[in-house]
Amino acid sequence: MGNSDSGFLNSSDSVRSGAPLKHAQTVTFEEPLELERGGVLPRTTVVFETYGQLNERRDNAVLICHAISGDSHVARHDEQDGPGWWDLAGVVGPGRPIDTDRLFVICPNILGGCRGTTGPGSINPATGRPYGADFPTITTGDMVAHQKRLIGHLGIGRLRAVVGGSMGGHQVLAWAIRYPDQVAGAIALATSARLTSQALAFDVVGRNAILHDPHFRDGRYGEESTRPAVGLAIARMIGHITYLSPQAMQEKFDLDRLQPRDVATEFEKEFSVGSYLGYQGSKFVERFDANSYITLSMAMDLFDLGHSRSQLAEALAPSQCRWLVVSFTSDWLFPPSQSEDIVAALLATNKSVSYCNVTSACGHDAFLVPDDVDRYGELVRAFLANLGGAPLGTNSEAPAGPRPTSIFQPQRLDYDRIVELIPPHTSVLDLGCAEGQLLTMLTARGHERLVGVELDEQAVIASVQRGVDVIQADLNKGLATFRDREFDFVVLSLTLQAVRDVEGVVRELLRVGRRCIVSFPNFAYYKLRKVLAEQGRAPESPGQLHHKWYDSPNIRFCSIADFQQFCADRGITVHRQIALDTEAGTEVRQDPNYYADLAIFVISR
Amino acid sequence: MGNSDSGFLNSSDSVRSGAPLKHAQTVTFEEPLELERGGVLPRTTVVFETYGQLNERRDNAVLICHAISGDSHVARHDEQDGPGWWDLAGVVGPGRPIDTDRLFVICPNILGGCRGTTGPGSINPATGRPYGADFPTITTGDMVAHQKRLIGHLGIGRLRAVVGGSMGGHQVLAWAIRYPDQVAGAIALATSARLTSQALAFDVVGRNAILHDPHFRDGRYGEESTRPAVGLAIARMIGHITYLSPQAMQEKFDLDRLQPRDVATEFEKEFSVGSYLGYQGSKFVERFDANSYITLSMAMDLFDLGHSRSQLAEALAPSQCRWLVVSFTSDWLFPPSQSEDIVAALLATNKSVSYCNVTSACGHDAFLVPDDVDRYGELVRAFLANLGGAPLGTNSEAPAGPRPTSIFQPQRLDYDRIVELIPPHTSVLDLGCAEGQLLTMLTARGHERLVGVELDEQAVIASVQRGVDVIQADLNKGLATFRDREFDFVVLSLTLQAVRDVEGVVRELLRVGRRCIVSFPNFAYYKLRKVLAEQGRAPESPGQLHHKWYDSPNIRFCSIADFQQFCADRGITVHRQIALDTEAGTEVRQDPNYYADLAIFVISR
Repeated sequence: MGNSDSGFLNSSDSVRSGAPLKHAQTVTFEEPLELERGGVLPRTTVVFETYGQLNERRDNAVLICHAISGDSHVARHDEQDGPGWWDLAGVVGPGRPIDTDRLFVICPNILGGCRGTTGPGSINPATGRPYGADFPTITTGDMVAHQKRLIGHLGIGRLRAVVGGSMGGHQVLAWAIRYPDQVAGAIALATSARLTSQALAFDVVGRNAILHDPHFRDGRYGEESTRPAVGLAIARMIGHITYLSPQAMQEKFDLDRLQPRDVATEFEKEFSVGSYLGYQGSKFVERFDANSYITLSMAMDLFDLGHSRSQLAEALAPSQCRWLVVSFTSDWLFPPSQSEDIVAALLATNKSVSYCNVTSACGHDAFLVPDDVDRYGELVRAFLANLGGAPLGTNSEAPAGPRPTSIFQPQRLDYDRIVELIPPHTSVLDLGCAEGQLLTMLTARGHERLVGVELDEQAVIASVQRGVDVIQADLNKGLATFRDREFDFVVLSLTLQAVRDVEGVVRELLRVGRRCIVSFPNFAYYKLRKVLAEQGRAPESPGQLHHKWYDSPNIRFCSIADFQQFCADRGITVHRQIALDTEAGTEVRQDPNYYADLAIFVISR
Repeated sequence: MGNSDSGFLNSSDSVRSGAPLKHAQTVTFEEPLELERGGVLPRTTVVFETYGQLNERRDNAVLICHAISGDSHVARHDEQDGPGWWDLAGVVGPGRPIDTDRLFVICPNILGGCRGTTGPGSINPATGRPYGADFPTITTGDMVAHQKRLIGHLGIGRLRAVVGGSMGGHQVLAWAIRYPDQVAGAIALATSARLTSQALAFDVVGRNAILHDPHFRDGRYGEESTRPAVGLAIARMIGHITYLSPQAMQEKFDLDRLQPRDVATEFEKEFSVGSYLGYQGSKFVERFDANSYITLSMAMDLFDLGHSRSQLAEALAPSQCRWLVVSFTSDWLFPPSQSEDIVAALLATNKSVSYCNVTSACGHDAFLVPDDVDRYGELVRAFLANLGGAPLGTNSEAPAGPRPTSIFQPQRLDYDRIVELIPPHTSVLDLGCAEGQLLTMLTARGHERLVGVELDEQAVIASVQRGVDVIQADLNKGLATFRDREFDFVVLSLTLQAVRDVEGVVRELLRVGRRCIVSFPNFAYYKLRKVLAEQGRAPESPGQLHHKWYDSPNIRFCSIADFQQFCADRGITVHRQIALDTEAGTEVRQDPNYYADLAIFVISR
């Protein structure tokens, strides 16, 4: 097994120790910064790095907000430069998802941190000595207020996008809410509207370890010879456990668990995972300041856009940007359900939002490591490409034809008819939107609001590439994301036969849509009847039901007559019924339950 | 909101502070105890409590092994007595799952602990002073070796059962392996064959907090005026987070997260969860010893029955008892997959084992709290009732007829035919065994080995009540638990039509069984054909397919002809085909694909 330090690289902060940031720039603001929770910073400094060129229209600037232990060095500036915290994943740079050939990237060090921007280690002008424990409580709002000064200083009126993960994602949310007319796009990765109680609890324990380290001296260790290294290292060790998924830890440590690695650390080195944590703890105290850790972790803990969905919707209501929200399936520190809450709140106030829960084994660290960048990076790239502003060149990889991941057949003859059924300028929710084909057709016509829902990850990415708003969700789990009567039309095309909870899905359709359009294959199509009646075989046909009985995505089989009965039994109003023979490409008017292989119903409650 | 201490009660150790154990008994052994990792304890003491009466045959004794912060006081002895750690859930006592009217319960304090049994606080005979840091490393094996002395002292040759959760479960595993002829039943709750790397990591951080507390003084704090209270409290806070599920923390703290509760603690009291953790940390140091915590947590960390399934199977091979393994769905410290590993290893060496993954929101604490005791307590009760030894009276609640949870129809006419197809003295695996009816029929005949697999929790409990071995598992996730050709017969009765991955399930059937018996409803039954052909409606009939198209548990529809083709295409040998008309109760010989509503196939690879 490898004993080198590099074997431990797995997240932002492992890349570098506290080396000077040679490409960093510094600006100092003399006007006082009033703080949200009281107090004033009489003068403030921000250290930042930039990449790429600001264009003449000054509309290609992207602000990147780093996470708790990150800094302004998001990427290397040249080949001689050390790697930045997002270089492991390769997110920022020429031709990368955040493409510095086209975009002007700004990454400032955070207020309250310890890398040059004003923080507990800065000189307090009132005393001439470092603030230390006297540094005031800082909020996420204060952080973005300070960043906004920098943006103004750079002569930028409106940001193309604000991007960040984890604590950086908190800043993205705060930017979009506080400065709605200065943000075109918000990209919130692996973040939340408030910490879970579990995440909060881990922060509390880490802080207690620092606060009760005898070398902490109530934060007044600045001029002492010792620092609260043990407490800070303990906090960092706890953090590291929470950044990794259990699977990732298993892969990393299970096989050689009894063999500690040969690393320099003063901590217990029993077990491979013990040596890893000891190493991470020891390295961290070399480059991070305990008062900064307390300041930043408290800012995260205090960040709170509300407990209920309505509170959260109210908090997010001022935002005017387009949103991309990304979570990671194995992230248990900022679990996907928290991103879903943000998405639901945005939808509740008619915001433009896309959401993907990226399949990942990497836990919270996923947004920093390369394993899943093929998907989250592509989402970021496609979202940025479809934002307003000066053209960014061709879309990255907009899909031309249908993709192989589509479980249903590629020709969607029902789409034309469905488009005809939907008046222009209405709002439309397309459930099971696949790669956004129907929504793209509608986009061309002009609509108040178009939203897709899709479960398949690749289809979600393809929809974002097309520039439509798409929410990743499982229809079988309901549409709790959406409010009653939120849309003029809800479309469920060729999906009914693939859901387990038909009654639940239809109930939700009728709750969310004023009118609902449902299309499904007609199981009583005469060719199918014949197969069963004459051959005694499970029906299949070249049309809508060409699958084998044992591997079909379809698990529900209903006929036009069955669906009519289903509606009648539940008092569902049927406004229109259209029956198609998709092989012939014609509408069926005579005995549709016999001659049609596909039905379209317009219904409402 | 309540500010009382009782609002914080949620796990074993919250119940009591370090009050003397007034019903405790003490035995001292003068012969030295040789320790697994070197060293000797020249004399040892065990403090224990007992409940109920040892019967004349001395075969009704149950040993309960407590978890890291528990002790011998598992239950109150009388109304004046304080509550024991399992009283919140009500597991031990007259009429309770571990019924002290029938069983003789022994609960010793653990070796290495701090409640009277020999541990770091005991006097080292070599020095006349407390061991402190000189206390040797203790393993789970040492713990059970010490418990065995007590059992011998009490004149008990063979235990009816050994029961324990978490660290107590480690002891259960060790008992069954080391003293196979002295254990009839092993009940392992919320435990594992080794910690996950994540759980190990949390232990390492907690230990580092203690070891680096300046008051720890390399463990030689015994005669000092201060103790490593901060380090121990930090370790305890980390522990508390890991004992709760994220959902449980949300319910407990989310609504009033900014309101710390009014508790006595020296720790940070920001946030409700902060005051909770501070309180738990402060209380713990009043009753627990840091050296004991290090000793016991290290024993847990060192417990390791192997990484691979074959290592684990080899480790468990010596055991001869029947096993009940119980995990809890929301337990992330000892996740259900670890119990599944134990179960797979037991099955691999033909052990008698039942397994249930109890649905719970309570996390690792689930086995200590009352929320889910209706299920895990019933499993314990039913398992104990069906163990060998003197009769324990009637079974607790053995089900008489079919239960409403059964998703298929109650009359199972195919069972009689299936029983006829299976020769006596063979080994049989029944997949989708429901409440164990078929296995009960087979039990009466005598078989080498009978095992059921079932997904439904209530059906699993009912199977355990019947005394059959049942494993809770989802067939759609495969049969990885079982080896190639492990059983003479594998039965999949009326389940094929309800699984999504038909090909995968059939492949697994054929891998695990020498012969496989598959029964399924015949979709080409003439009454069903008629419904579709003549009425144009999704077929249903009073027999096997009486469900509606939209809420049927059945999602796959195949005919006898389809299944014949399916087998032919895959080179699967069909040994027998039986077709039944279950309405008439007769076998169908003429045109079964038309006249039979149910088919039974005997197949092999």
